[in-house]
Amino acid sequence: MSELSPSAGTSRRGFLRKGAALAMAIPAAELLTGCSEGRASKPAAAPAASSHAMAPAAAPALTARAKADEMDAMHEKGVKAFPAKTSGKGNQLLKPRMQGGVKVYDLTCSEIDWEVEPGRRVKAWAYNGQVPGPQLRVREGDRVRVNVKNNLSQSTAVHFHGLELPNSQDGVPFITQPPIKPGETYSYEFVVPNAGSHMYHSHHNAAFQVGMGLLGAFIVEPKDTRNEPKCDVDEVMILNDTMHGYTLNGKSFPATEPLVATLGQTVRIRFMNEGMMIHPMHLHGMHMTVIAKDGWEQPAPWKCDTLNIAPGERWDVIVKANNPGTWAFHCHILPHAESEHGMLGMVTALVVKPANA
Amino acid sequence: MSELSPSAGTSRRGFLRKGAALAMAIPAAELLTGCSEGRASKPAAAPAASSHAMAPAAAPALTARAKADEMDAMHEKGVKAFPAKTSGKGNQLLKPRMQGGVKVYDLTCSEIDWEVEPGRRVKAWAYNGQVPGPQLRVREGDRVRVNVKNNLSQSTAVHFHGLELPNSQDGVPFITQPPIKPGETYSYEFVVPNAGSHMYHSHHNAAFQVGMGLLGAFIVEPKDTRNEPKCDVDEVMILNDTMHGYTLNGKSFPATEPLVATLGQTVRIRFMNEGMMIHPMHLHGMHMTVIAKDGWEQPAPWKCDTLNIAPGERWDVIVKANNPGTWAFHCHILPHAESEHGMLGMVTALVVKPANA
Amino acid sequence: MSELSPSAGTSRRGFLRKGAALAMAIPAAELLTGCSEGRASKPAAAPAASSHAMAPAAAPALTARAKADEMDAMHEKGVKAFPAKTSGKGNQLLKPRMQGGVKVYDLTCSEIDWEVEPGRRVKAWAYNGQVPGPQLRVREGDRVRVNVKNNLSQSTAVHFHGLELPNSQDGVPFITQPPIKPGETYSYEFVVPNAGSHMYHSHHNAAFQVGMGLLGAFIVEPKDTRNEPKCDVDEVMILNDTMHGYTLNGKSFPATEPLVATLGQTVRIRFMNEGMMIHPMHLHGMHMTVIAKDGWEQPAPWKCDTLNIAPGERWDVIVKANNPGTWAFHCHILPHAESEHGMLGMVTALVVKPANA
Repeated sequence: MSELSPSAGTSRRGFLRKGAALAMAIPAAELLTGCSEGRASKPAAAPAASSHAMAPAAAPALTARAKADEMDAMHEKGVKAFPAKTSGKGNQLLKPRMQGGVKVYDLTCSEIDWEVEPGRRVKAWAYNGQVPGPQLRVREGDRVRVNVKNNLSQSTAVHFHGLELPNSQDGVPFITQPPIKPGETYSYEFVVPNAGSHMYHSHHNAAFQVGMGLLGAFIVEPKDTRNEPKCDVDEVMILNDTMHGYTLNGKSFPATEPLVATLGQTVRIRFMNEGMMIHPMHLHGMHMTVIAKDGWEQPAPWKCDTLNIAPGERWDVIVKANNPGTWAFHCHILPHAESEHGMLGMVTALVVKPANA
Repeated sequence: MSELSPSAGTSRRGFLRKGAALAMAIPAAELLTGCSEGRASKPAAAPAASSHAMAPAAAPALTARAKADEMDAMHEKGVKAFPAKTSGKGNQLLKPRMQGGVKVYDLTCSEIDWEVEPGRRVKAWAYNGQVPGPQLRVREGDRVRVNVKNNLSQSTAVHFHGLELPNSQDGVPFITQPPIKPGETYSYEFVVPNAGSHMYHSHHNAAFQVGMGLLGAFIVEPKDTRNEPKCDVDEVMILNDTMHGYTLNGKSFPATEPLVATLGQTVRIRFMNEGMMIHPMHLHGMHMTVIAKDGWEQPAPWKCDTLNIAPGERWDVIVKANNPGTWAFHCHILPHAESEHGMLGMVTALVVKPANA
Repeated sequence: MSELSPSAGTSRRGFLRKGAALAMAIPAAELLTGCSEGRASKPAAAPAASSHAMAPAAAPALTARAKADEMDAMHEKGVKAFPAKTSGKGNQLLKPRMQGGVKVYDLTCSEIDWEVEPGRRVKAWAYNGQVPGPQLRVREGDRVRVNVKNNLSQSTAVHFHGLELPNSQDGVPFITQPPIKPGETYSYEFVVPNAGSHMYHSHHNAAFQVGMGLLGAFIVEPKDTRNEPKCDVDEVMILNDTMHGYTLNGKSFPATEPLVATLGQTVRIRFMNEGMMIHPMHLHGMHMTVIAKDGWEQPAPWKCDTLNIAPGERWDVIVKANNPGTWAFHCHILPHAESEHGMLGMVTALVVKPANA
């Protein structure tokens, strides 16, 4: 999805490791040199060390320090593991088959094992074996057919959340269609009516089925692109908080995928909330300019660093990547992002690489 | 409240049944004819049926299908029951008595039995026997008197939420007035100072009393109507999530009342949240244009399909009813809207009738 | 922080007591005189009193009234206690030391006892013995050094939430710096890059450390003040809902501090949410005009009376204090503000004094 130029053959994952190491090296160096920005000083006589030298009574103090070190080691381990490898990747762009001028997408619903973070595997209900399901990306006015094969034990149906479709294609069992029974295939077909960042997901027993993973991004590029912001990186970030824990695009920290940009580039982020809770997403180091809500242009863009995203909402923002470094990017409901064991869940990073890297 | 013309003597309830049947007939027809939009195909040899023919070992597969059918039947039953009849209707427009140029409203607070959905009866604390209480609808500059008779076991008080009243009329016991004791009557009187979609509710032991039902809409039409959008349908939708479960205007799906418009009409919806949780309301098939917050015009209208409404907030939106059919309209915190037993709670529909119906 | 002129030597606390007594006197008087606004009438024969005179069987009715009186007494006691004295006051303006053109702030992190409301003392982790920590208030372009001394049992780090700092000063352990170990001091230094209402708080084991009190306001006045609204009162209101219960600036009602203005004055309120939940703050009697989000000007100010503030967000609003009296000001998630024992938690008041008082 990202329009990153694979410059110097550097993979995003590989780059980030280098970038993070680099970023972390800076304060370490300052620590040693005592330069004017970011000075850390170990007190000449740190209480724990010095008191320990004097008497056994000070042992509790040492224990406290040891406990702090132990906690810090867990935090460090999480950060160093980021971005951690897991099997499976959601939200992969799905190319349509062309059939007589129609863009045809085949979606198969099935139960899978999904690795949310290293070693944590859960049962998931997935479109095409991915959580989130594959990203569908079309153009306003395209004729689209979506064939849905149901290999689940429950009936299902697909609602194209945000698209203003003819009623018969709206995906609500017993109101606009019969449910798609286990073993059946059902086809939706429509001319894409409105542009923007939309979603598709189950609309049958949905509190369960969407929670289990039957969801994905449906991006519609506008016919008239004159108002579209030029951007170098264009990412979807789907928030979730249900059966699989706190996730971004189906993964929990440290298995979340960082966003990567080169200094000076413009990044578009399409937030989508498929969970049950709000998530105020906070970006460090740079602000976000909000340009669209639910696929509709805001009358005037506005700036923030913490954007509250409610279930079912989509918000499009632009970030000017003008501050180099590895920047934390997380839900600001802190228990969604950290525990005493380190960062978790809805945490990722925006990595801004130097322009000449 | 709705300015629907009772054309052809069709009741809203009756219409909807017809409309829903019609809407549901379309995909069924497509199913049979295999037309280009919305094709469903039963696999030539559905696993459940065929395997069952072969061996008793396949019985679990049949059981799975039977389970799916059973779940679907519960979902279908809910949809077919909508809009289900219950006794009692909240938010009914209350006409004032005129007394020397003053619009006088009499509100009696009492404990009642309230049918939230068919067969589910709860204890409620109500104004004039309704949950929400009767809708008060006045004009900016009107002189209004509200006589509150307290037939409850607790003291109470009425706060006119959003109205910028003189302090003495603000309804906060021990700050602006004494509590209204059981058996007492208390009168508020004021000139209506500011237009918009407001509320009235208890401000005494309010977490309990509002949760039990002491709440209602207080709509103020502006003196200067030049900026008011022309609309054919004007509805209040009060969200709640407390003692009576997830409700819209005091009822849970399938007993919620649909909104009904004719193709081409303009619908105004005044969302009000009297609960403890946010509710991102999602309309299918059409977008909403947000025009006011807490009764105050937004500087520029903006569009969305999912509007997050927090406790105490009011949001006014306009929907151009330009997409015919029966459209799901629900809170997108999915457990507020659906379970494995079918749709529930904060679900209703916007029914857009053909213009020549 | 407040630019209140201490006119007539009246303390804010003292004034409020007088103001509240005055406000409460009005309806009491009306009660007696039966004047046209706010008339209360005790029924000629109140059921409890009259029936009690007749038969012992009516005793339950009396009990109900006695219960109502008992509840009312608890509510009255809370209101009368407001603003209640507690030891300790958070969010106090901290004057910097000047060192070679650098504004130097010394922050010491330590565990303290904190009185949240009269008699309720909790363990807190505090900057300089306050919850919230001292308010840092600087100007865009200032060079600032913040020395953080860690006297806690855990490591910590300070993130300047909203400031677009160089990466090395961002305060995220193992990404931008090593954690500040117990006993250590660490220095941040930077040129303040962007104006607005920002925050500083722990970014290490933050769900715990911020919850325990390691947080404060970081206000940056703009270099170019031409767009700054002129205001007479400028207040920070930090919302929290974690280990210390529901608090405003570290205190729960009735120990919260009222905002005080003189009729005609302009009040700026800088809301900041350091908790885990949304808090829709509702002001009685006057509306709020929203001018900034996360320190960034909104493209067009907009009005409301209930502003939903999510964790990590800051919202700046302007209130024109044009309605005299003592006005309730509270979170509209009602259990955050009231129980059957009276008002609690996230409740304060805006007191608008007569101009000639």
